[in-house]
This record gives sequence, C-alpha cells and structure tokens, in this order.
Amino acid sequence: MIKAGIIGATGYAGNELVRILMGHPQVEIKWYGSRSYINQKYAEVYRNMFEIVDDVCMDDNMEELAEQVDVIFTATPQGFLAGVLTEEILKKTKIIDLSADFRIKDVAVYEKWYQIEHKSPQFIGEAVYGLCEINREKVKGARLVANPGCYTTCSILTAYPLVKEGLIDPDTLIIDAKSGTSGAGRGAKLPNLFCEVNENIKAYGVTSHRHTPEIEEQLGYAAGREILVNFTPHLVPMNRGILATEYASLTRKEDGSLPTCEEIKAVYDKYYGAETFVRVLPEDVCPETKWVEGSNYVDINFKIDARTGRIVMMGALDNLVKGAAGQAVQNMNLLFGFDEDEGLRLVPMFP
Amino acid sequence: MIKAGIIGATGYAGNELVRILMGHPQVEIKWYGSRSYINQKYAEVYRNMFEIVDDVCMDDNMEELAEQVDVIFTATPQGFLAGVLTEEILKKTKIIDLSADFRIKDVAVYEKWYQIEHKSPQFIGEAVYGLCEINREKVKGARLVANPGCYTTCSILTAYPLVKEGLIDPDTLIIDAKSGTSGAGRGAKLPNLFCEVNENIKAYGVTSHRHTPEIEEQLGYAAGREILVNFTPHLVPMNRGILATEYASLTRKEDGSLPTCEEIKAVYDKYYGAETFVRVLPEDVCPETKWVEGSNYVDINFKIDARTGRIVMMGALDNLVKGAAGQAVQNMNLLFGFDEDEGLRLVPMFP
Amino acid sequence: MIKAGIIGATGYAGNELVRILMGHPQVEIKWYGSRSYINQKYAEVYRNMFEIVDDVCMDDNMEELAEQVDVIFTATPQGFLAGVLTEEILKKTKIIDLSADFRIKDVAVYEKWYQIEHKSPQFIGEAVYGLCEINREKVKGARLVANPGCYTTCSILTAYPLVKEGLIDPDTLIIDAKSGTSGAGRGAKLPNLFCEVNENIKAYGVTSHRHTPEIEEQLGYAAGREILVNFTPHLVPMNRGILATEYASLTRKEDGSLPTCEEIKAVYDKYYGAETFVRVLPEDVCPETKWVEGSNYVDINFKIDARTGRIVMMGALDNLVKGAAGQAVQNMNLLFGFDEDEGLRLVPMFP
Amino acid sequence: MIKAGIIGATGYAGNELVRILMGHPQVEIKWYGSRSYINQKYAEVYRNMFEIVDDVCMDDNMEELAEQVDVIFTATPQGFLAGVLTEEILKKTKIIDLSADFRIKDVAVYEKWYQIEHKSPQFIGEAVYGLCEINREKVKGARLVANPGCYTTCSILTAYPLVKEGLIDPDTLIIDAKSGTSGAGRGAKLPNLFCEVNENIKAYGVTSHRHTPEIEEQLGYAAGREILVNFTPHLVPMNRGILATEYASLTRKEDGSLPTCEEIKAVYDKYYGAETFVRVLPEDVCPETKWVEGSNYVDINFKIDARTGRIVMMGALDNLVKGAAGQAVQNMNLLFGFDEDEGLRLVPMFP
Repeated sequence: MIKAGIIGATGYAGNELVRILMGHPQVEIKWYGSRSYINQKYAEVYRNMFEIVDDVCMDDNMEELAEQVDVIFTATPQGFLAGVLTEEILKKTKIIDLSADFRIKDVAVYEKWYQIEHKSPQFIGEAVYGLCEINREKVKGARLVANPGCYTTCSILTAYPLVKEGLIDPDTLIIDAKSGTSGAGRGAKLPNLFCEVNENIKAYGVTSHRHTPEIEEQLGYAAGREILVNFTPHLVPMNRGILATEYASLTRKEDGSLPTCEEIKAVYDKYYGAETFVRVLPEDVCPETKWVEGSNYVDINFKIDARTGRIVMMGALDNLVKGAAGQAVQNMNLLFGFDEDEGLRLVPMFP
Repeated sequence: MIKAGIIGATGYAGNELVRILMGHPQVEIKWYGSRSYINQKYAEVYRNMFEIVDDVCMDDNMEELAEQVDVIFTATPQGFLAGVLTEEILKKTKIIDLSADFRIKDVAVYEKWYQIEHKSPQFIGEAVYGLCEINREKVKGARLVANPGCYTTCSILTAYPLVKEGLIDPDTLIIDAKSGTSGAGRGAKLPNLFCEVNENIKAYGVTSHRHTPEIEEQLGYAAGREILVNFTPHLVPMNRGILATEYASLTRKEDGSLPTCEEIKAVYDKYYGAETFVRVLPEDVCPETKWVEGSNYVDINFKIDARTGRIVMMGALDNLVKGAAGQAVQNMNLLFGFDEDEGLRLVPMFP
Repeated sequence: MIKAGIIGATGYAGNELVRILMGHPQVEIKWYGSRSYINQKYAEVYRNMFEIVDDVCMDDNMEELAEQVDVIFTATPQGFLAGVLTEEILKKTKIIDLSADFRIKDVAVYEKWYQIEHKSPQFIGEAVYGLCEINREKVKGARLVANPGCYTTCSILTAYPLVKEGLIDPDTLIIDAKSGTSGAGRGAKLPNLFCEVNENIKAYGVTSHRHTPEIEEQLGYAAGREILVNFTPHLVPMNRGILATEYASLTRKEDGSLPTCEEIKAVYDKYYGAETFVRVLPEDVCPETKWVEGSNYVDINFKIDARTGRIVMMGALDNLVKGAAGQAVQNMNLLFGFDEDEGLRLVPMFP
Repeated sequence: MIKAGIIGATGYAGNELVRILMGHPQVEIKWYGSRSYINQKYAEVYRNMFEIVDDVCMDDNMEELAEQVDVIFTATPQGFLAGVLTEEILKKTKIIDLSADFRIKDVAVYEKWYQIEHKSPQFIGEAVYGLCEINREKVKGARLVANPGCYTTCSILTAYPLVKEGLIDPDTLIIDAKSGTSGAGRGAKLPNLFCEVNENIKAYGVTSHRHTPEIEEQLGYAAGREILVNFTPHLVPMNRGILATEYASLTRKEDGSLPTCEEIKAVYDKYYGAETFVRVLPEDVCPETKWVEGSNYVDINFKIDARTGRIVMMGALDNLVKGAAGQAVQNMNLLFGFDEDEGLRLVPMFP
C-alpha cells in the first residue's frame, strides 16, 4: 500500500485520477490538492464522489506533500511544477507530471511553443517520457515521469511502428485529430459553453498546437532523425475521446510495389501484439472513441490507399484515461513494481 | 466462483451485465445468448469487448443452459421467460429476470398493460420483486427474482420512505420521469435515430406506460392500500440516466403545520442511512444523472414547497446499472451470499 | 419602414432578435447595444452574422437611442430597464422589454422573487403583458410591452383555455418544464460548460424559480382568482426548446363524469383554432421541441387519464423564438400595425 | 410563379427542400413524392410541417409529374433517376438531381464506385454539374442539373481557387471531412441510432467513399489534369454540418519562398469576393459548422504552415442546405432567371 497525493485534483484529469485510484488496491490518496477549492469538501466540487471521498481540498504545498506520500501526481497548468520542483522533493517522493513541463528535452523548443520560461531545466534530463508502451523500462527506474499529452499519446502510438520500421515517410505525416471537450478543462470560458460546442465542430490551434513538438520529438526518435509534422486538433461535441486520423506516404519496396495489408498488420502486431492496452483491430474495422470510453485502451487500425500510395492510420482513446489519468496510473504501476494493469482493468462503457 | 448465463446478451442491458460481471471476482460468464447473433463473436457485436470477451453468441435454449450455470440472467423481451420457464429449470438454476414477466402479482393487470397472455402464471407467486433495498431478505432465498424496471426503481426509491411513513398522500403522487435513450433498446427504429432524438425532448406513453402498474403495486404495499399515480416518461437526448421528479401533497400534522425539512430528511435517513447504493444528498443539492453515470447509485433529494403544501422529490440513477444490470448483479450477490456490493463498487464517471 | 434598437444585442436572445429582424421587410436595426462589446464588430461576437451585419456594438444609452429609433428591444438583465426608464423615453419611442421588470403587477411580488428593488414602479401599471394570443388588443395601444418569459409563455398557453373555462382545478396545477441550455444565457459559468450539461439532466430552482409568480398571476387572471402552482424547471442537454408537461385534476361534471377528449379539444380549438402560432396537435401526438425549432410556433396537446381523473397537458416551443425574440417581434408587429406574422413565417427546421 | 415537384420528399434533404421552398415567393410545390408514404399526409411524416403543408404523399411517377410541373427535384437513391429518365420527360420539365447519377462524366468511374450499372448514360453528356459558383453560366441553360454531393461541395469550394491558380500541388491534397448525422439519411439502421452516434466519432468509407471521384473530377478540371486525392469522411455527433480540413503542399516561388498569407487571401478573394454564399473569413478565424447552420453559406479560411511548407484549408457548410437543398434551389434560381439568392437569404441560426 502506497500513499499518493494529487495536485490539481479538481480538474477533469484530477477527478479521473481519483476515480481510477479508488479502484486500485495498492494506493491510498492522502492529499487532494486544489488551489481554487482549499478547505472545501472534494465531494462538493465533484458530486460523483459523494459518500466516496470525505476529504477536503488542500493547497499545493509540494514540500509538505513530499513528506507524506510516496508519489505525487501533478495535474496542473504548464509551468507550475517547473516553478516549484527541487532536488529535496525528488529525493523524498516520485512525481508523475501530467503537465507538459518535462516532456520536451530541448528547453528552447518548450519555451518557444509554451511561451513561458522554464524554471527548472536541470531536471529535464532525468525526466522520463512516460509513454509506457515505448519507454517501459526507463520508466521503472525514474524519479520524475513526464506523462504524455492526450493528443500525443494517441498520435504517436498510432504511427509509431510504421515510423520505427521505416514503412512510411515521416516527412509526409499529417495528423488530423478530433477531441471531446473535456480536453479543454473545467475553466469557465465562453468557447466551452454547452451552446457553443454542441451541434458544432471546428479546428483550433491550427499549425500552432503545443502537442506538435512533443509528437515530433518522440516520432523523431523512432525515425532516427528530426521530423516535422502537420498536427490539427478539432473540438467535437462529446465529453470524452480522441480520434487521430493520420496520413502518410508508404515507402515503396525496391520493385516499386507498396507493402501489403498483411505486412503492415504484422508490423503493428510485432509492437503491440503483447500489449494489454493497445488493441489492433480486425481488418476494415475503424476505431471509434465510444468503444474505448472509460478504459485505458487505444484502438488502432489502418487502411492502405493503393491509388495514392498513402496509408490512413487511425487511433482512438479516452483522453482522460489513456490520454491522462489512466496512463499516469500505468506509470505509477511501473514505478512501484505493481502489475502494469493493476487498477486499470476497466471495461469500456457502452453506450 | 459461480457460472452465469445471459439470455439477451446483445441488448444494451445485456452488454452492461457483461461489463459489470467482467469485474466481479466470483462469477464467470459461460453463455452469451443472443438469438439475433448466433455463432457470431460477441466482440463483433460489441466492440468494447474486443480482446476481453472471446466467446461467440449462443441460442436461448434455457433447458440446456440450466444444466451448465448457477444463475441465468434473462434480458429478454416481455413474454419470453414466461413462455419457456419450467419447474425443471428452476430446480437446476436461479433466474434473475430483467423483463417484466414476473414483476406484477396480479396476472390480469400484467395482461392488460402488456397486452399479451401470461404463459406461466404459476410462478408469479414465488417470484421475488428484486428491489434490494426493500426486499433484501426475501431475495436471499428466492429461486426466481423479478428485477425491477428502470423507471420503477427510480420512481419507487425516491418516494418510498415518505409513502411508507404516511408523510405524503399517495393519491396525489405525480411522477414526471426523464430517461436517456439507451432505455429504448438497440432496435433499429426511426424514432431512436440520432437526428430524431438529438436536440429534442418529448413525452411518450402518456397515461399508458407499462411501468405505471409496477410503481402502483409496490408503493401500494408501502401505503398499505391500492393507489393510483400519474407517471409520464420523457425521452432525453443523452445515452444514460433517469431522473424522476415526483410531486405529492404533504400530510399535515394535527395542528395543520407541514413537516419540516429536518423531519423529512430524518425519514429518508432512517430508510437509506445504512444503504450503500442510495445517497440522500445534502440540502438544496438537486440530483443530476451525470453524477451517478456508470455506477449503481441512486441519488435522492427533496424540496418542500410551503406555499402549495407539496413536496418535490427527485431521484437519479443510471438506467443500465441500478436501473437494470447493476441491480441484477446486486440481486445475484444476495442470492449467492456474496457481499452485496461485490463487483458494484463502481465510481461514477464524470464527465 | 421603422427603425429599431436593441439593448443587450449580444445575448442569445439578442442575437435571435437580429436573426429574425434581418428577415423582416419593415424594420431596420440601427443600434446593436452591448455593454460588454462596445466598439467591437457585432459579427465578431456572432460570426453567423459575418457579411450580414457590418455594425459595431454600441453602449446602452437609452436616452440617445430613443431619439433615433421607433422601438427599443431590451434584452437585458433584470433591473436594467427599471433603472433607466423615464417618461421622456417613453414619449419618444416604444419599448419591448424581454426582461422581467414590468411583467408582474404587484411590485412586492417582483421584489420578493427577484431580490432587487424596483426602480420605476410608476410604469408597471401601463405596461402590457405581451402574451399576444391573450392580450392582443391591449398590446396594440401600448407604449411599454413586457415580453413574457420563455417558461411562462409555454406554461401559460398550454393550460390557459382549460383554466379559463374552468375545466381544471387550478389549485392542482403542477408544471414540470424542461429547457434547452440557451435559456441559461451566454455567461461563462461552470454549470453551463459543455461537459457539465452534456449527458446530464437535473432540476434547478425547485420551488423558487422566478417564472412561478408570473405564471400564477396570468393564470390567476384566467381563473378569476389567486392561484398557486408548482413549477419545476429542468436543464436538458440541447441548445433550444422548452417542453412543459402540466398536470391538473379535471373538473367533474354534475353527474361525476369527466369531460371527454372531444370536449377538451373543442375548448382548445375555441381559443387557438384561429391562432397562427399555436398548433393544437392531432390526438395522441405528443409535442416535441424539435418540431418547432427555429419557428414561432407553440405545439400543444393533452391526454386525459380517466384512472386518476387528471389531465396531462403538454406544450413545446423554441425558447429563443416564441419564448423570447419571436414573440417580441410579434408584439412589435401588433404595436406598429404590421401583419402579426410578418417576419415570423419561419418554418421549423428539422432535423 | 413556377410549379415544382419533389421525388424523395420524405428524406432529410427532401424535407429541407420543402422548408426552403416554403419561403420562396416564386415557387409552389405541387407534388410531394415518397414511395414509402404514399397517401399519407406529409405533415404526419414531418410534423414540423403541421398546418404548413396539407398535401399527402404521392408516388414517383416521373412521366405524370413532368406534365404538371416546371421543375422536378429528385432527392432519391442512386440509380433511380438514371433508371427512369427519358427524353420525353426532359422535353417537358427541368430536372435537378440531388443523387449522384449524373455527376460523373466517365460512366465507368461511376459504375466502379457506385457498383451499379448506369441505365441512361446518354444523358450524362448534357448534364451540368451544379456547383453554382463554378458552373453558373452553364447551369443557366441546362435541362438536367447534377446537384453536387454535400462533402463534394465543401471539399471543392475550399480548395478550388488554389488548385485553379496552381498555388498548391493537387497530388498532395488530403481531405479530412467531418459530417453531422443527417448526411446518413433517415433510414432506420443500427449504426445511426442515437446511442451509437452520440458521444462518439469515427471515420468510415476510408479510401472508398463515393464522393472521392466526384472531387477528383472537378478539381481535375481546375488543375487541368487528372488528380488523385485522399478523402476521409467522419461521423460527428451532431445533426447538421460538414467541416472539411484540407492539407496540401504549397507551390514554392522561383526563389524557393512560400506564398504569403496575403497572396493566398487575394486568390480566394478573386474567386469568392463577389460571391454571396461563400464567406472567406478574417485571418486566424477558423470556420465552425454552427455559424452556417440553416443557411446556404460556405465559410472558408486557411492557415499556412511555414515549417512544413503546407497549407491547411478549412471549409464549413450545412450539409442539408448548401450541401443539398439550398444549392438545389440556387440552381433552380439560375435555371429560371430568378435572383440567385431568392428564397436563400437564410440567416444562420445560432445557437
């Protein structure tokens, strides 16, 4: 039994962490940090937790928290953790950061895309990018895990095997992503009002969304060189779910022919056949966000277009689970030697 | 470890049973019955179950099934179970029926509201109405449990303590209920198409909905006499959830005064204070279906209107969980002596 | 051709006024008042108006505005118009107030339910309650029209003929109303965020909603005496639409029998048979909000419950049209002698 | 005043034609054809039309209909019009076909993508592709107009100026489109049920959707040569609206530089500056389907990605209006010499 603290417990990702950890037999939550709701009962902020969580919200004193718990989840705005992190804290507790502060290795890239100064670049080096299926072994020994972004997890896992094996030209990669509205957070902003989102779809952050460099860095590692991609997020009138539709030119064989469907499938199976949380779907079945809702699964499939020589890859996940809290718990399981799916055997809820 | 079979496993309630039983440590599903999809993989019909359920769908041969399992869940159309049930079957296995066949004690009432002949009225007597919070002890020894309807569970639990204690006049009871669309089932019917339901609300089955006599019978037991109520269901553009708003005149005290809020609250607490799955909310907090989604909870509250002398009672539940599959599993737990909340410690998912 | 000004043009009702008036051949909008967006282009606030409205938003200077236009629509928060209205203004221009300031004749009732002091009670007397189907003649000669509330319009029109003719006992009237989320306005508030409203339904303002005394006053006139009703609004995950489900005990005839369906229908037809915007539906067809969306119609029907002696009345309208802007234009048509349906021949949009 | 007939009047596009034509001062609908609902009142099938349309549904006898009306709209399944069209009919009346039968000039391409034999290829040559903004002059003299598909209209108009002017490489064009569910029609099919679509997003018809060759043919004309594109449609949980997000590599200038934002904007303005129904949005404003709902507008914008050398183009329209019925009426206006926007000055409805 370990003790956990959450900073940012009253955001949507924070609440999802609470939901998942409530079902984890090895973890006890000792600290519900929320700067906005200090001293208010957590169950008044999230009434789903009525008679389940009795605690009141605490502040975000990381130093005090580090004394009390084995692991801290920071589900906080960009810049928070970088602003307060110290070696003292890291000596006492493990940290799983759901913000972007330690995801990007090049601090200049971080500062350019996030438009803030990074306050503790000295920890970037040791931070492990917590995309479990790819960095599993590195995570196990980490003190500081940078939990990937929701769009990023979906975008990377969908294309990773084909980039890694050189089956697609990464410079042609275009990612068109669609997200439910919980990804926008619980802030009271006009564009997120029901009447503005409902019966509507739009792109946003076109050419400038902050998950772009994160995708480029990680897929660049797989490609063995720097790459640039187009990433376009869209806001969809639903609560949860991300669907990434990705396009790339297939690498032709020496005889000019395209790889076959079976060959592509074999590569996906090579990487994901043994993975619990990645489901490569049967031929011709397109991923749908609803089929993974509430669970830690990523559903992936692809379709070759022989006419254009491109492949269309598709991936779907629940942005609050595999895209945030679920993956954070998966990382925690790796850090503490629990079964990787402990607390995460969540069957998707349909409808 | 017991073995369970499901007849009607490919309806929405059937799929929810599968979801819940997958997380139940004492149960193994041995039979996914579905007349419409015989020999097809269950996970092709419900893709959330991909890599979770490997079985193919079976027929609805109750006699064969009774040989193999300890409990059968029938999530079938009205009339099915009544048409096939035999003493032989009941000697071999327990049955939890999610249809209406054995809910109503007076066969004439059943036949009038359902417009079908009841084929095995000889079993009505022994069937126990499986509203656990009220009939817990009776359920424990039953062979045949009639699992209550979704609207009924919500409507009854919301008003039950006040009817039982004589605090309201049951003849003035009016129930205005609102349901998500999964209650209409997975049949491909025009009125349930997305474009017909979305951005729309309507009443249906006004004065004639079949859950009416079920509510009247059960609340009649509480009142100690026959009662008649108005029950009006509405279709709401959401997947899950039922909200019942109930109106009744308060019984005045001898001095003509109304009961106080504290007195009413005390009565609710008397009946539900020890109940795991009924949450009586803090004063002035109205139940919302979203706060119980995916869980077995019923959230209840009330408001006294001193001006009109009436009370407004409100109850919310997830129609597929406490309104169907969750309550069925709760009944199964009672039947087999498991902890009543085994497999049902589902934290509501928000948002 | 008359000139119109709108104060509060950037609320949802204000935008709907603009939409409707754009199609009105006799009106030109000269003033888009919006305190929050002064000097900003209206089409930047409401992009549906791009290349349709070129104007910038103005302040809310009623005195200046009164000089320029023939009619002012105030779609403003409670208290605004009462705070600025003067005899000077009323001498120069007509006012159609979409707020509640002049709807209630008893200033004490207003101040009790709205919890604000009424700043110009001297104008309450002359204000005409602009429910066109009932007060048509009075509206024609008015200087100041109090445009009814959205819930109120729906609730009153649904029950009015039966109250007026004594066919129901008004003291038993219970109104359970359901509204789309645009009724909550465009303010950036947490409870109105997409993720809080979507997949959810709740009651709110139980026993205390401000439209209650407005309904009671108007139906009280019809009944010929003071009445008290229960009114409970609910928030539905859709943009537009109000459905009111109303319950009341039928007045029995001398022989104890209930009025027949035909008799009730005849009364509705007596009042609404010649009304353009009230559609009494065929027997057994329940009103649905979607069928009136975008139009000025109210769809009404009823069902007698012989078992309980009650009638269930149902009414549906678009809260932004007949419940706000459409009715305001209908009142304007009456004030200026235009055809009552001028600019309002809007065919409902489906789906 | 002309007379119009509609075959397929009870589909969603048919109903939208009725809605729009009701507001057209020069047209009278004489024939509501619907094979499924013959002799049933139209207003029983579409209750929005109650007290607006009194007619009953007729059969689909084109020959008889041709005697009675000046123009026939066929909103019918693929193959219907090709199966019944004759020179006799075309001599008597004009036809605007909302199906795909006469959109594609190469009959082999049609038969390959639609998997049906074309029964009257002799009329393909004279049919004019009714994308008004591009083929306006040709439409004016036509007897048979092939009204473009919903996805097609959006996809083509969004990219057309840049293809025509050689600013993008059409072989790199990738179209990721998202549609509301009304595009799937009113057929009672399981995948279109509310609970299957709501809270969900998926791609479908990947690499095989029938609008692909239509897009390729028309943009091929603009490019001056054959082109192949990737087109991927997605189903979005909303009633109406299509958003197309389109990606292409920009053609670099001789000095290797990319065209500027201003240069691209100038090209869009060259083609659409004088167009009533195409709105090129201000810089950095992304099109949203909600802002055009209920109207005949297409909103278009773009964003240059200097990093990748690509442009992201975005277009939004209402699939039932500019994507179907509205454009059909626009074509009718051209055919009969009415003002092109007659009956189409529909202000988008928000929210």
